Amino acid sequence: MALVKPIEYKDASPRVRAVYDDIMKTRGTDWINNFWKVQANDPANLERMWRNVKDVMAPGALDPLVKEMVYVAVSATNGCEYCTYSHTAAARKKGMTDAMFMELMAVVGLANETNRLANGLKPEVDPPFKLDPQFK
Amino acid sequence: MALVKPIEYKDASPRVRAVYDDIMKTRGTDWINNFWKVQANDPANLERMWRNVKDVMAPGALDPLVKEMVYVAVSATNGCEYCTYSHTAAARKKGMTDAMFMELMAVVGLANETNRLANGLKPEVDPPFKLDPQFK
Amino acid sequence: MALVKPIEYKDASPRVRAVYDDIMKTRGTDWINNFWKVQANDPANLERMWRNVKDVMAPGALDPLVKEMVYVAVSATNGCEYCTYSHTAAARKKGMTDAMFMELMAVVGLANETNRLANGLKPEVDPPFKLDPQFK
Amino acid sequence: MALVKPIEYKDASPRVRAVYDDIMKTRGTDWINNFWKVQANDPANLERMWRNVKDVMAPGALDPLVKEMVYVAVSATNGCEYCTYSHTAAARKKGMTDAMFMELMAVVGLANETNRLANGLKPEVDPPFKLDPQFK
Amino acid sequence: MALVKPIEYKDASPRVRAVYDDIMKTRGTDWINNFWKVQANDPANLERMWRNVKDVMAPGALDPLVKEMVYVAVSATNGCEYCTYSHTAAARKKGMTDAMFMELMAVVGLANETNRLANGLKPEVDPPFKLDPQFK
Amino acid sequence: MALVKPIEYKDASPRVRAVYDDIMKTRGTDWINNFWKVQANDPANLERMWRNVKDVMAPGALDPLVKEMVYVAVSATNGCEYCTYSHTAAARKKGMTDAMFMELMAVVGLANETNRLANGLKPEVDPPFKLDPQFK
Repeated sequence: MALVKPIEYKDASPRVRAVYDDIMKTRGTDWINNFWKVQANDPANLERMWRNVKDVMAPGALDPLVKEMVYVAVSATNGCEYCTYSHTAAARKKGMTDAMFMELMAVVGLANETNRLANGLKPEVDPPFKLDPQFK
Repeated sequence: MALVKPIEYKDASPRVRAVYDDIMKTRGTDWINNFWKVQANDPANLERMWRNVKDVMAPGALDPLVKEMVYVAVSATNGCEYCTYSHTAAARKKGMTDAMFMELMAVVGLANETNRLANGLKPEVDPPFKLDPQFK
Repeated sequence: MALVKPIEYKDASPRVRAVYDDIMKTRGTDWINNFWKVQANDPANLERMWRNVKDVMAPGALDPLVKEMVYVAVSATNGCEYCTYSHTAAARKKGMTDAMFMELMAVVGLANETNRLANGLKPEVDPPFKLDPQFK
Repeated sequence: MALVKPIEYKDASPRVRAVYDDIMKTRGTDWINNFWKVQANDPANLERMWRNVKDVMAPGALDPLVKEMVYVAVSATNGCEYCTYSHTAAARKKGMTDAMFMELMAVVGLANETNRLANGLKPEVDPPFKLDPQFK
Repeated sequence: MALVKPIEYKDASPRVRAVYDDIMKTRGTDWINNFWKVQANDPANLERMWRNVKDVMAPGALDPLVKEMVYVAVSATNGCEYCTYSHTAAARKKGMTDAMFMELMAVVGLANETNRLANGLKPEVDPPFKLDPQFK
Repeated sequence: MALVKPIEYKDASPRVRAVYDDIMKTRGTDWINNFWKVQANDPANLERMWRNVKDVMAPGALDPLVKEMVYVAVSATNGCEYCTYSHTAAARKKGMTDAMFMELMAVVGLANETNRLANGLKPEVDPPFKLDPQFK
């Protein structure tokens, strides 16, 4: 059960409805997921967070499917249940197959493993890793 | 300073050298980074971890550059300094530009933000997210 | 389901009941929440943890409501479900309104975002941040 | 060393300088910290993140000092070095004393402790915690 | 509900059944837990992960029960629900009593607490901690 | 550099010195590490935390070396640099060899990996894991 009351479309203020309408239009869906319904308790933050999601997840230097898979990778690393379900669904909608999902999880698992081997054994960062091309 | 002594090539046993040789051959480089030099204190684990990295990071359903960027995303989320430096360098070598890196970080940041908004406000997972295409 | 059996008041030893009684008296309630009932499987640790909570959460240089909101912030960051529910309830009891909770979560989300932008882009710590007033 | 080149004011585009100017004006300082200088490699994200920080950290239902201390609490929980230094400095500037800082850290430490006791022993969430006043 | 379809023994390919058979034989059980059934969507990764678990958790310089308790400690720290249940069950099977479990959790809780006190107050690493016996 | 001034023995109040004396006596050393010197800015918390460490890390149902290795496992998982150095040193002092340390890290790495595979693929917790012996 959510810790604040989810705001349904029928109960929403015009300001909240405007965001809900834009979410549905942008996504080509006819419903609002609960993440936004709880954010709607603070209309200014709802607007702000939706603008952030729209801006960051728009096509750019990276492909939208790649971005969505990165989102799943972070959510699984953090153990966020809601986000893992919602962004896995979003990634599937954008074309992620079972094979891609399984391979993504293999990378996420391995990265979490070697992150701790490095944290625990404390190898020094090799100087070449600090001499990246962008500084030349 | 590392918490176990890094094993240099010249001091390594034939078993460890065999892994070092394969790392350099696979990567087309002539040096071994410190992560592997500390792992070499346990030759069986060195072999095991290198085999894991080779298998998981090989081309498959996902592009090698995408995998490397997912690795960076996980490492930044976990705050692993060594891994962030080493995998950012690896991703650049595979073609990640500054624009791609900045956009990757924007997604990582946003995912970490919304993960906590979901963790804290506790919206229920929407039923449609549990009805994914793979079950149909 | 808990991984150890929760100890109910009627089944508790006098040593455990003494802690339970103090919890209820301190909080002005007539029931014990499950966190303490599982801790009660180790009476020495139950006493120790309750003493810690009592000492740390008592009024001091910080306001009790501020402390409780910090507790919620940490629990959401870590994704601890039990703690998010219990400390949000505690914070509401101490006066946290919906508006305060939503604003708290906005700060928690933003901090988790910029933490990863810093972890991933690795800006150097600016020298002025290391010259704090307490050293003058 | 940062993983992208920090952009100094003298080398910045007018778009980036406009954000830098607003940061300095808002904070009443005459320098830009490295977090923003690395963000400046992506001007759109620089603008977006600065707007987020300005909006979220502005006075509202919570006191600015409380917000800054919550930021420190999250940063210490996540182990973000840059953020811990920068937001502790910011909190001191807003009035956090040594006594307040030590007490804040005591709460952060305790919350991280009990979060794991709950994660490991898995007490059920008590029903009263799900019957919060906002639903009445 | 899992995000990929769990593969039951009766529906499994010979390659997957071979791993399932080895898991049951190694553990002396007649059933497969869901972790492996979801991994089975990627037979190569199923083989790889089972080989890793078998190799790493085998008796060596550390006692198998100690290893299992370390697994529980990590899982509780990360807040992984599935892993906390499965590895606590495995540790009990290997001899962990309630008293040992409660004491383990007390260490896990304390370590998570002092980790954040160190992250937040930033004491310098004392030079003697960097002069470990293995370098002499 | 620490975020509060470390309190040296010569500058310490009698209350702080009493804790320092007990730390050195308990550990059989003639120096105080920086973790305690920063805690000493809050004498009540210094006393409290030292009492917690003494109580939790004392011999009990678990061996002191096992407890110290669990501490290292948690610290590496969380990426706490100070704690990883200090508790690895403590574990070595209590008898941890290089072979034990390498094996410990292999378990820590694997647990962090499978924790994320479970977080991301979301297998249901198998009912037998919820039917533990302590409930019979």
